[in-house]
Amino acid sequence: MGVFGIAVAPKSEINAAAETYSALFALQHRGQESCGIATSHKGIINFHKDMGLVPDVFTAKHLEALQGNLALGHVNYLTADGNQRVNAQPLVLSHINGNLAVAHNGALVNGLKLRNEMERRGGIFYTTSDAEIIAHLVVRERVWADSIEDAVKRTMQYLSGAYSVIMLSRNKLIAFRDPNGFRPLCMGKIDDSIVFASESCALDAIGAEFVRDIEPGEIVTVENGAVNSMKSGINARKSACVFEYIYFARPDSVIDGVSVDESRKEAGRCLARHNTVDADVVIGVPDSGLSAALGFAEESGIPYGVGFIKNRYIGRTFIQPSQGQRQRSVKIKLNAIAAAVRGKRVIMVDDSIVRGTTCARIVSLLREAGATEVHMRVSSPPFLHPCFFGTDVPDREVLIAHNHNLEEIREIIGADSLDYLHFEDLPQVVKGMNLDFCHACFTGDYSVEVPNKVEKQGLEEGVSTCEQ
Amino acid sequence: MGVFGIAVAPKSEINAAAETYSALFALQHRGQESCGIATSHKGIINFHKDMGLVPDVFTAKHLEALQGNLALGHVNYLTADGNQRVNAQPLVLSHINGNLAVAHNGALVNGLKLRNEMERRGGIFYTTSDAEIIAHLVVRERVWADSIEDAVKRTMQYLSGAYSVIMLSRNKLIAFRDPNGFRPLCMGKIDDSIVFASESCALDAIGAEFVRDIEPGEIVTVENGAVNSMKSGINARKSACVFEYIYFARPDSVIDGVSVDESRKEAGRCLARHNTVDADVVIGVPDSGLSAALGFAEESGIPYGVGFIKNRYIGRTFIQPSQGQRQRSVKIKLNAIAAAVRGKRVIMVDDSIVRGTTCARIVSLLREAGATEVHMRVSSPPFLHPCFFGTDVPDREVLIAHNHNLEEIREIIGADSLDYLHFEDLPQVVKGMNLDFCHACFTGDYSVEVPNKVEKQGLEEGVSTCEQ
Amino acid sequence: MGVFGIAVAPKSEINAAAETYSALFALQHRGQESCGIATSHKGIINFHKDMGLVPDVFTAKHLEALQGNLALGHVNYLTADGNQRVNAQPLVLSHINGNLAVAHNGALVNGLKLRNEMERRGGIFYTTSDAEIIAHLVVRERVWADSIEDAVKRTMQYLSGAYSVIMLSRNKLIAFRDPNGFRPLCMGKIDDSIVFASESCALDAIGAEFVRDIEPGEIVTVENGAVNSMKSGINARKSACVFEYIYFARPDSVIDGVSVDESRKEAGRCLARHNTVDADVVIGVPDSGLSAALGFAEESGIPYGVGFIKNRYIGRTFIQPSQGQRQRSVKIKLNAIAAAVRGKRVIMVDDSIVRGTTCARIVSLLREAGATEVHMRVSSPPFLHPCFFGTDVPDREVLIAHNHNLEEIREIIGADSLDYLHFEDLPQVVKGMNLDFCHACFTGDYSVEVPNKVEKQGLEEGVSTCEQ
Amino acid sequence: MGVFGIAVAPKSEINAAAETYSALFALQHRGQESCGIATSHKGIINFHKDMGLVPDVFTAKHLEALQGNLALGHVNYLTADGNQRVNAQPLVLSHINGNLAVAHNGALVNGLKLRNEMERRGGIFYTTSDAEIIAHLVVRERVWADSIEDAVKRTMQYLSGAYSVIMLSRNKLIAFRDPNGFRPLCMGKIDDSIVFASESCALDAIGAEFVRDIEPGEIVTVENGAVNSMKSGINARKSACVFEYIYFARPDSVIDGVSVDESRKEAGRCLARHNTVDADVVIGVPDSGLSAALGFAEESGIPYGVGFIKNRYIGRTFIQPSQGQRQRSVKIKLNAIAAAVRGKRVIMVDDSIVRGTTCARIVSLLREAGATEVHMRVSSPPFLHPCFFGTDVPDREVLIAHNHNLEEIREIIGADSLDYLHFEDLPQVVKGMNLDFCHACFTGDYSVEVPNKVEKQGLEEGVSTCEQ
Repeated sequence: MGVFGIAVAPKSEINAAAETYSALFALQHRGQESCGIATSHKGIINFHKDMGLVPDVFTAKHLEALQGNLALGHVNYLTADGNQRVNAQPLVLSHINGNLAVAHNGALVNGLKLRNEMERRGGIFYTTSDAEIIAHLVVRERVWADSIEDAVKRTMQYLSGAYSVIMLSRNKLIAFRDPNGFRPLCMGKIDDSIVFASESCALDAIGAEFVRDIEPGEIVTVENGAVNSMKSGINARKSACVFEYIYFARPDSVIDGVSVDESRKEAGRCLARHNTVDADVVIGVPDSGLSAALGFAEESGIPYGVGFIKNRYIGRTFIQPSQGQRQRSVKIKLNAIAAAVRGKRVIMVDDSIVRGTTCARIVSLLREAGATEVHMRVSSPPFLHPCFFGTDVPDREVLIAHNHNLEEIREIIGADSLDYLHFEDLPQVVKGMNLDFCHACFTGDYSVEVPNKVEKQGLEEGVSTCEQ
Repeated sequence: MGVFGIAVAPKSEINAAAETYSALFALQHRGQESCGIATSHKGIINFHKDMGLVPDVFTAKHLEALQGNLALGHVNYLTADGNQRVNAQPLVLSHINGNLAVAHNGALVNGLKLRNEMERRGGIFYTTSDAEIIAHLVVRERVWADSIEDAVKRTMQYLSGAYSVIMLSRNKLIAFRDPNGFRPLCMGKIDDSIVFASESCALDAIGAEFVRDIEPGEIVTVENGAVNSMKSGINARKSACVFEYIYFARPDSVIDGVSVDESRKEAGRCLARHNTVDADVVIGVPDSGLSAALGFAEESGIPYGVGFIKNRYIGRTFIQPSQGQRQRSVKIKLNAIAAAVRGKRVIMVDDSIVRGTTCARIVSLLREAGATEVHMRVSSPPFLHPCFFGTDVPDREVLIAHNHNLEEIREIIGADSLDYLHFEDLPQVVKGMNLDFCHACFTGDYSVEVPNKVEKQGLEEGVSTCEQ
Repeated sequence: MGVFGIAVAPKSEINAAAETYSALFALQHRGQESCGIATSHKGIINFHKDMGLVPDVFTAKHLEALQGNLALGHVNYLTADGNQRVNAQPLVLSHINGNLAVAHNGALVNGLKLRNEMERRGGIFYTTSDAEIIAHLVVRERVWADSIEDAVKRTMQYLSGAYSVIMLSRNKLIAFRDPNGFRPLCMGKIDDSIVFASESCALDAIGAEFVRDIEPGEIVTVENGAVNSMKSGINARKSACVFEYIYFARPDSVIDGVSVDESRKEAGRCLARHNTVDADVVIGVPDSGLSAALGFAEESGIPYGVGFIKNRYIGRTFIQPSQGQRQRSVKIKLNAIAAAVRGKRVIMVDDSIVRGTTCARIVSLLREAGATEVHMRVSSPPFLHPCFFGTDVPDREVLIAHNHNLEEIREIIGADSLDYLHFEDLPQVVKGMNLDFCHACFTGDYSVEVPNKVEKQGLEEGVSTCEQ
Repeated sequence: MGVFGIAVAPKSEINAAAETYSALFALQHRGQESCGIATSHKGIINFHKDMGLVPDVFTAKHLEALQGNLALGHVNYLTADGNQRVNAQPLVLSHINGNLAVAHNGALVNGLKLRNEMERRGGIFYTTSDAEIIAHLVVRERVWADSIEDAVKRTMQYLSGAYSVIMLSRNKLIAFRDPNGFRPLCMGKIDDSIVFASESCALDAIGAEFVRDIEPGEIVTVENGAVNSMKSGINARKSACVFEYIYFARPDSVIDGVSVDESRKEAGRCLARHNTVDADVVIGVPDSGLSAALGFAEESGIPYGVGFIKNRYIGRTFIQPSQGQRQRSVKIKLNAIAAAVRGKRVIMVDDSIVRGTTCARIVSLLREAGATEVHMRVSSPPFLHPCFFGTDVPDREVLIAHNHNLEEIREIIGADSLDYLHFEDLPQVVKGMNLDFCHACFTGDYSVEVPNKVEKQGLEEGVSTCEQ
């Protein structure tokens, strides 16, 4: 998921909704399932949200209707709870002190527990999103709190897990980040207007300059052009998600002080340092494996090559071929460039292996294109434990690395050799990061208490919309 | 607004969603703004709702996805709060005991007060509908109540105003009607399956037989094919809305024992009894003036004629002509049939006059078509007071009868003579009705305490969606 | 099918496309399958057409894009050739002298023959419409003709059958009608702008005044505000379609000098004069049976009643109920008003009986609603022969009157008595018509040579688009 | 534009429409404006086409409706004639011998002349496409020819310019390529089914194997699984378009014996051989500049880098930011990766410079991201002359290289140095190509007679559809 917010300076002519639209487009890689924009105008919050990609959901007419100097946007991915229109964000609601829009990136560890507590007191939920749980708490605390930011601070005492949240009230834009700092959140500036975004690439997209990252546990409020910061005061182990660098984020983003592109290249370099195999070319699996492949080539001296072409029009609903067709070919989305690999010993770099099936197909693509050897290098350590913080990784049972040793995996994917990023190299990969990072998916060492398994809200007794 | 619910008998093969679709189509005249259907299937409530007419909102694919033996449907009209997608019903939510879908027809008098009370305790509202207020109360009471119907009974103690509600839970379909009986609600049967509907025409549409009206203050529950009834025990003046007969309902419906068609004809007959004008033809303004015109012709002996043709394709979004075009012609929706009125003295019957502007245009249509005299007869008494019970009539200030006397109105609309239904004739018009009726819009005698003026939720501080 | 054209006067501010839109909406009853508008602007013909109803096909954006002072519109019905997007009109094409848009109402008798002749010389056809055949001929003749209207005159020598056509070229609007005058076509005026339309109700809709009917065999051209008329010089029996009065046209239209409403009432009066049955009420089947029922009541002295209510939202795609549902009820589109017919002997008037199935259902509706007797009266003579001129009536084999005698039909439809309009009364029904009329469907006396059976273009070897 | 056709072997279970859908998706880079598929089934040609991208235009329902063993597909780009729905291909038409579907890639040099000749004899044109001109000729010749392929052969005598065409008749799939071989066209095989495609990447996408290129002047027919080839017998200079390698085609395609990827890399190597500048990194402008950059890096020894990230969701309608926004930022589609270029001397490789404006912006992006020097290298010679063969390059007047010398261009785009591919290196770039190539855009040496300037059909006197 990705969030973006903007508080246009009082006399600026910047169009809040239009900038949010461009920024969400830059964050589209963080969620393709649904998206939405809310704006605050004279105390009324207008919004539009729907299933689909940013350019498909919004028309010029929508943007025109979304007036106001404060805007909030969200892109959502498909969660295990299914294709739920009701879960599109921002959530927009009214409460005793006015209206509120809420957009959330992350995953609460104690969401179900909090929800059940509120339900036991007569609470109503329309969605299965953590955003609604956070909204309920903030509104409940708002009754006694001096301000919305005070209510946020009180709410943070209850929450456990990952949450980078932006909220919109009548006059304020409020951004806050969980005390562990699981998910990224940064602040930028465009003229005198303030923006918040999940990644700095969204700042670039609208021509804003990067100011700083929101700190773990920090609450930043913008009102009438003035920026205020307060701290939640909660002590927590800093635990920035390392998978943002490996897979999630765009390479042109800089998160918590580290360039995503540079960290990927460094991962490639680390892999190269452990390499013992002789090869003719190093290629990356697009898109997230490219930087690591380049780093590997740099460090090893083996030439870098472009071995795959990805259809640049994917990302929209493609009618799946029948089973027969699928078996004949997997080349619709990704094709090998025979000229680049034929007769060569190839080192192929990808960011991770989850189930192993996709990986096996890609190895096979290279062999069909004439590669004589395929050596697989993975720019992250083996994935052994589930993530409770919003990466939507499947349960332990299906993780190939949980069930097989290195040699078995190599055989399953059909590679000539296989190596993962060594866990000890991780600090080097994110060198310069001004936080500690979360490595629970590799080590099982969670920085907050977690349940035995990932619980999905509403799966058994759910509210669901029809597929369309 | 219109509501419909069906509880298919355990072994029946009736398709709950498909029947609801047909029934909503029969209730389409009660609301063209948005519509929705929810079904309960294995504890999951599926739903689809959107802005638009029933045939436009639902595809065959939607109906297939809406599995389950319990279904609930709603059609909504455009309220003064604006074109709000969020207000589409049924509302579907989850609470401590499962899921709930709610569809409401009517208007609460104390809705804002109840909402504010709940907001003061941290309540969140996503819509400006009374359905959400009712849902909140039912869920809150459900915490302490033995059953959902018990929670409904407790909730009814708080509510004041008009509400004919149908709700869907995991295993139950619950229908209830306010103690005053403002809005209609009836029960029918199709084989062993039970249905509830705002009007009996929805029963006809699916081939169900009429069983009886739900009584004011009654709560009827269907579970596993068994029907149970309980009373709210609240004492209240019976006050069925007389405007259902005059304007809202379809003529083929029978409400609280009285045929809508017959009551309209009787209104025409009453007008004829007071008539002193000689004329050549009696014509009605389609659609709701036709029956009254027929009654007038019957009683007066003046021949009945069809003087207007209404474009049968209206009801969908029509691009408004420019001001210039509009002044040249208003005949796009309604045209006079010159052959029927040329050279004739015409008695023209319509159901009501609100602002007077439409009426003046229609009188003018007849004159252009060659009518030598136009005598306007209105099949309801003058509209003098606002309605708080869901007819969405405008404020006193714009009601022509509130600001002008009979002679002034006649002159404004350009008629040769004008008469309204005499208030004393109203009992005759709904003779045989097994309830007393509400006549507050004519007399100001409200059967429940009302505020000084109609309050709109969220107009000042509202949550609103973009126009699309 | 319906056609409309407008030539806005040089200095007028009338918007040609917007007026065409309103006019097509008034002609919507003549075709609901597809529609289109073409405008001529600085030598370029812009157009938009699609499957669907006028308000669904056109957005404000389309109308804005359709600039120019000359406009042409068309509504198309579903032909036996299937749901063909390619057949949407106007056809817009370019030829040696510029561009041309063509819209046609009617059916050629020798269309296939002409098409085959042109194909034998290398002609290409994209549609199965007669409009394309006419276009090909006009363009071919244009090579040798002095003007487009001269080319039209030459083309008319080849054509046999029904064609009321409007064409648009760079600077001219041309309207012409076949020498038999099968299909209606009239001319109107709005300020100094000239309009042509299939029916006068389209003139009313835009506030234009009726000027005159286009005569059979006449070609009228408008260029720079000047109107010119020429004759084809073809001798032919005048044969205006009587079914326009009985069924097709809107009652507020006046065609070839006769009010549609008045002709229908007269048909009812004629039926009444032959009536020997005593009854309590006369009701019409909406919409086209209403006027005839009123005439019957007038003449017979039996009271007129409104016995049916038609769902006013039909006309859009409605998901068909399953077979089971259909058997339980046919009341979704049409319901009987029990209060109007219960315990009564009913005379029910409809415009025609084709196969008899719909009629049987409607009789049954009345009996279920409590009518004690149902006497069916049909405001046209029995339909015995196929129509080759654009009424799209089915082949002889399925016509109930072709296969059964009066008594058998009465029994099939379940009526207590049955009578048709007597053929001898037809002249009385269209009294004052300034043409002779075509009665081939009743008598088999065709005024032009016809093939043995109706031939459908392209059914065997057709070009077809996908359903959407 | 791109074309694809498939003739499924008699007993195969391959779904022709579904394979065409996947293949068109692989050819999407050749045209994003409109697309279509036609299939032949029992003598009827069904088709669906519309404006938009392949995944947006086709639903599963469309593909199901497109039955038949022969299928033909087309993707179209936006031509200078404007956004014309009517120009979507395949064209589907009927003629004396049945139906025909036509899809064309290329541009005729004598199209207007041929069209005018046919118009002078009464010909009608609905589109401004060359496909329609070719269709008219083939149908006209078909009258006298023994077969459709014979008609094609006769037609080719008239045509001058670029045409790679696939046609579909009742039982045959016919592919032919102009005698110059301007545009690519290849043949493949999947089991016993035969496919034709503009590029080999479409074969890969459906798992088909490459058989051979269609030769210039060759006509290949598939009927009942049998493949026949004939020659047009026209002598012509072989002139394959070199811009297919430089820009149009996908790098994984192999055209006329040369790998697109390899030719691009070779272009980069050639540039490197002329290079005199010292630099720290070589980066390519995505997508078509990447391979050349890699070749440059390889040859020069300067490290290759990934300097840009392209938003992977572009390719759909994006609402353009206001002028103000645009000036602030051009980074929505393309962003520089600061980590890769900061403090570095950069060699930036792109495929061509047309007007120079985009190029100037990209140079500026690099400088803002911290590049200390930007040296521009272009992997094609300067574009000096217009193309008449389907590359849709603008007129001479706007070509920057036509109006400025090297130093002026360097200054306009703001680069520190600038070099183009030397014309003498072109043979090396496409070494191994089994045809001669067309280099008219660089030299003005056209292999067929061309007009003085590119003529656009219908621009002055055109038929056009509304924008939607």
